[in-house]
Amino acid sequence: MKVDGRSYRTIWPGEDGSVEVIDQTRLPHRFEIARWCSMQDAADGISTMVVRGAPLIGVAGAYGLALALKNDPSDAGLAKAYDTLHATRPTAVNLAWALNAVRAEVQPLAPAARAEAAWRLAGKLADEDVACCQAIGTHGARLIAEAHARTGKTVNVLTHCNAGWLATVDWGTALAPVFTAHDAGIPVHVWVDETRPRNQGASLTAWELQHHGVPHTVIADNVGGHLMQHGQVDLCLVGSDRTTATGDVCNKIGTYLKALAAHDNGVPFYACVPSSTIDWTLSDGVKQIPIEQRDGREVSEISGLGADGQVATVRLTPEGSPVANYAFDVTPARLMTGIVTERGIAKAERDDLARLFPG
Amino acid sequence: MKVDGRSYRTIWPGEDGSVEVIDQTRLPHRFEIARWCSMQDAADGISTMVVRGAPLIGVAGAYGLALALKNDPSDAGLAKAYDTLHATRPTAVNLAWALNAVRAEVQPLAPAARAEAAWRLAGKLADEDVACCQAIGTHGARLIAEAHARTGKTVNVLTHCNAGWLATVDWGTALAPVFTAHDAGIPVHVWVDETRPRNQGASLTAWELQHHGVPHTVIADNVGGHLMQHGQVDLCLVGSDRTTATGDVCNKIGTYLKALAAHDNGVPFYACVPSSTIDWTLSDGVKQIPIEQRDGREVSEISGLGADGQVATVRLTPEGSPVANYAFDVTPARLMTGIVTERGIAKAERDDLARLFPG
Repeated sequence: MKVDGRSYRTIWPGEDGSVEVIDQTRLPHRFEIARWCSMQDAADGISTMVVRGAPLIGVAGAYGLALALKNDPSDAGLAKAYDTLHATRPTAVNLAWALNAVRAEVQPLAPAARAEAAWRLAGKLADEDVACCQAIGTHGARLIAEAHARTGKTVNVLTHCNAGWLATVDWGTALAPVFTAHDAGIPVHVWVDETRPRNQGASLTAWELQHHGVPHTVIADNVGGHLMQHGQVDLCLVGSDRTTATGDVCNKIGTYLKALAAHDNGVPFYACVPSSTIDWTLSDGVKQIPIEQRDGREVSEISGLGADGQVATVRLTPEGSPVANYAFDVTPARLMTGIVTERGIAKAERDDLARLFPG
Repeated sequence: MKVDGRSYRTIWPGEDGSVEVIDQTRLPHRFEIARWCSMQDAADGISTMVVRGAPLIGVAGAYGLALALKNDPSDAGLAKAYDTLHATRPTAVNLAWALNAVRAEVQPLAPAARAEAAWRLAGKLADEDVACCQAIGTHGARLIAEAHARTGKTVNVLTHCNAGWLATVDWGTALAPVFTAHDAGIPVHVWVDETRPRNQGASLTAWELQHHGVPHTVIADNVGGHLMQHGQVDLCLVGSDRTTATGDVCNKIGTYLKALAAHDNGVPFYACVPSSTIDWTLSDGVKQIPIEQRDGREVSEISGLGADGQVATVRLTPEGSPVANYAFDVTPARLMTGIVTERGIAKAERDDLARLFPG
């Protein structure tokens, strides 16, 4: 997508065999490119969330392994780099998946051929992610186009968290339909939930929409229900970290509340998911998906740009007040209008999802 | 209620004819008492939100008029002070109501008798507010006691915003049942919504619960639905800024989303309201109650305690991203289990509310 008129991905091959990424820890207040020259640079970048978002960290891990093999293509070097990179985000399914793919590709090769093969595969994984997101965008944009055809007005989309291009290599998941529709000239405006506690909406989603030129408004997470009661939301689009075979959606905490409001007000509510997030072994998300609890300081403290132009952290809660920080919640399929995938839109139910992804 | 073992109200007569208040702009990071020696001190304190909360600013306005009359008890002095105080929060119904009550009381009197009469009435209004909140606490505490009797466990109450004693003279509205139950030895724990954008939950509710010794946990506003899905909330108690004759509740933005989640999970959801907030002329809150939009900087910026021990303000959103800031929403009566008033608990419907408040 574009940053002030110039096209970017979130990760790309740099000069002299380096890898370059947008440093997401600096957003939204600074736009900076980080350069990784070694596997350790990549590992540090993944663990400190210079890059984040499941699809993106998978590709970042693949590039990290390629950087390692340039330096030491031996079996021992491969094993050590794999372990180091895997440990950066041990629960990230996409990271393990991408590292496994690269290892399987290069292990049979002579050491001298490994680095180039890994580099090539990392690029291929990046391109595949872009194609997947682009397809989600194409399918989802039809929902926006239909709403515009119905009303003749700007289509108001509400989104939660950041499922934009910064979470992927390009295009994003929930925002891919928005970028696609906007680029096609369909008037679209996005209500951006700030998404406490980590504020990925206020920082990342708002930033990427603004710099691509998509009209948007940041709101507190409390506001969506009121907007829907008053006809100010035409469509809700969210991402998904994990989707059951039956269409339950595990996404950033608070998604469930917005889905309830959409259901109560007849507003269509879709999750936009690469099929890699569908776990075909799960049938009841509320019962079966464990919800991660994160560091309470994400709730009790917050960072932002101070008057002196420096990013500062301030405490919000009284000293000693306990906090709890649940990272995700599960929206039951009964509240979802549908699931937008790279192969089209399915109802949030087992048979219709299986129709798109047989076998 | 208590602050570390010592009883306080939010406003009380100080020495030498002054009025003392808890400075709520300093909470939760500093506990400081402000002293008002003149009407202008009171007017400044109300407009800068040293005191806030509808019942409290009514009493503060009454004391402000009493301070004015000590200095200039003439008709002209009374009229000027009335206008100055009224202008501090022009839309606050309770403020106008209290100022009118004091003016009506003192206008017929000789100027020399006015100050003392105003002072006496301000004290009476404060005591009446305490009695009203205490009655709400007594009625509402039965809900907590019943939940405890049913489960034999600690009762988990979820609340939104600050409808605690800091918003009133003492006891609070939504928190009055919590304080009453806690003081009676019933084990109760409160999930405190931080309540973006102004964070009255994380700052004021958490502070007052902590200093009174009530177990509590601060959560992001996004979390309540997840907790209710997993049986971790027994009862929701919220305040109300304006209640229709039919039981629709206009309260802090986000209340509606929690009511939807409570309804979806069979969790009882009550508003605790002094009958003064019931507008008997309204029958459809969503259609009839205009929702105030406040300064967008409440969304784009936030204040907290910096590492240097000073309160600092930081910006959360990208430069130039638009924000919207709706202050309240309306929860339809169909989602309310009941309305707790100073005369008992009614169903959220016209006939049952009118039963408690005939005529």
